[in-house]
Amino acid sequence: MKVKKAVITAAGRGERLYPVADTVQKAMLPVVDIDGLHKPVLQIIAEEAINAGVDEICVVCAPGDEKRYLENFNSLRENLLNTYAGIEWAQREAEKIKDLLERLQFSVQKKSKGYGHAVNCAKDFVNGEPFLLLLGDYLYVSHQTGKSCAKQLIDLATQENCSVSAVNPTKEFLVGKYGTLTGKHFGTTPGIYEIEKIIEKPSLSVAELELQTSGLRTGYYLCFFGMHVFQPIIFDILERHLEESDYPLLLTPALQELAENDKYLAQEVKGNRYDIGKKFGLLAAQVALGLAGQEKDEVLTQLVELLAETKKQ
Amino acid sequence: MKVKKAVITAAGRGERLYPVADTVQKAMLPVVDIDGLHKPVLQIIAEEAINAGVDEICVVCAPGDEKRYLENFNSLRENLLNTYAGIEWAQREAEKIKDLLERLQFSVQKKSKGYGHAVNCAKDFVNGEPFLLLLGDYLYVSHQTGKSCAKQLIDLATQENCSVSAVNPTKEFLVGKYGTLTGKHFGTTPGIYEIEKIIEKPSLSVAELELQTSGLRTGYYLCFFGMHVFQPIIFDILERHLEESDYPLLLTPALQELAENDKYLAQEVKGNRYDIGKKFGLLAAQVALGLAGQEKDEVLTQLVELLAETKKQ
Repeated sequence: MKVKKAVITAAGRGERLYPVADTVQKAMLPVVDIDGLHKPVLQIIAEEAINAGVDEICVVCAPGDEKRYLENFNSLRENLLNTYAGIEWAQREAEKIKDLLERLQFSVQKKSKGYGHAVNCAKDFVNGEPFLLLLGDYLYVSHQTGKSCAKQLIDLATQENCSVSAVNPTKEFLVGKYGTLTGKHFGTTPGIYEIEKIIEKPSLSVAELELQTSGLRTGYYLCFFGMHVFQPIIFDILERHLEESDYPLLLTPALQELAENDKYLAQEVKGNRYDIGKKFGLLAAQVALGLAGQEKDEVLTQLVELLAETKKQ
Repeated sequence: MKVKKAVITAAGRGERLYPVADTVQKAMLPVVDIDGLHKPVLQIIAEEAINAGVDEICVVCAPGDEKRYLENFNSLRENLLNTYAGIEWAQREAEKIKDLLERLQFSVQKKSKGYGHAVNCAKDFVNGEPFLLLLGDYLYVSHQTGKSCAKQLIDLATQENCSVSAVNPTKEFLVGKYGTLTGKHFGTTPGIYEIEKIIEKPSLSVAELELQTSGLRTGYYLCFFGMHVFQPIIFDILERHLEESDYPLLLTPALQELAENDKYLAQEVKGNRYDIGKKFGLLAAQVALGLAGQEKDEVLTQLVELLAETKKQ
């Protein structure tokens, strides 16, 4: 099995304290990547997938956004080719964007009907193959030099020929914000679990009763990280749920069913993720990328200077 | 004399290592303001002018941008009114944007012909009155609670009935990047100078010979901060330079002439400025605003956590 397709969900709108994101698409906000270049968030996410071996990418977006994404990327490329004509890094970047555009497809989610529904919009694109699923408003920063979070996940899914979700051990007071799960240890590598039970945003008392996982530090639970590799069986489950359930259609119940019917692992990925949609989220993502990148010293110096200035006041 | 008009120059494009800025307008990038809300950079700058007493604002922009700014602000306002219907802060924000739009005018700079030319594009708008001049890609963060950099400048200009430029004592190795000036101390308040000589981006040796200012720490020079209040005489000078000079038309020679012909002060403003167009500039601006704002503790905690994570790796 090889994972050659990726789905990036970027259809959510105005659901959080972030009104500006509707005028400037969140996924097009510029961030300085670890290579020191300003790039739109969506490009950084897509490049993580491409560098992990993915050939084709489908962005699930809101109506009208597919045109805006294409226009933005094309105008970015034009600008690199013209304004920075003859400059090597710019021509390389322009090539990368051309390459990205050749791999990029869009699937429009006509109405906001929940995350499970958004994923299901990519069914035709996925067309019966395994695929990588990413969130369009999160930036993932790996702790492992040279091995991105996506690559860690794809490697395990390929090796075990099954669905794998990335998880993070998460402090108990945060479980109410995430899909939380438990399972038994799988194989001999630490940090891999066979998923047994998943509950969406459990209360702390429910988590204590039903979601404890042996081997984790006290007060920690396994929570989804927003990155998955799925076997195409997930669409059979989602289609059934679409017929049986009301909207919004969540993904988590489908994942619980997946765990009951198929081999489905959870992997603690070595990395962090940053929700660019929340307050100071873009700031945190930028600091994390800066500190993970080639210009770590510059970022550190700048932060120390800013903190020193604050102290003076 | 009252300063009732402000000019914000936002016409510069693709001149620096920031290709993304052309697809997402720099001045529309969202930043969390000191009140904790995400706002476009241009709104934060314009609100600084409004809060300092300005009634009308002219944005000097590139062709086509005036439409995009209006569309973006209108769609932001729509979103606040609809998605956040009934939520008090959102309705207040929507009101503020409406108020901003009523004060906002645009002057299109058809071609990039230098900063002096950009300023001159606002001549008809200014119409013979004194005005505040701001840069559209800088964020200013005051060190004085309750008194913004713009207000500090307008207060002095009003009191002395003359042109005033904000300056910052700047380390000598940086003078080659800025307009640098010298003058004699004015009045008894420290940090106010009557400008005598201005040189654009001087070499260090030129600065040492011609731009030393008594009373500054050794190795420091007075550099422009990118914020000015001008008497309308500046346009007479610019018009003459337009006829006599080649493009790009700089502002600095006009300011040298202003110093020779009119009362023209420099004021050390209590604040910092952040160039959002340079690498990590948006990051620095966001950290600075965060540390100056109501959610200082949250920002500090987040930074400390990110630094701790980096250390682990």
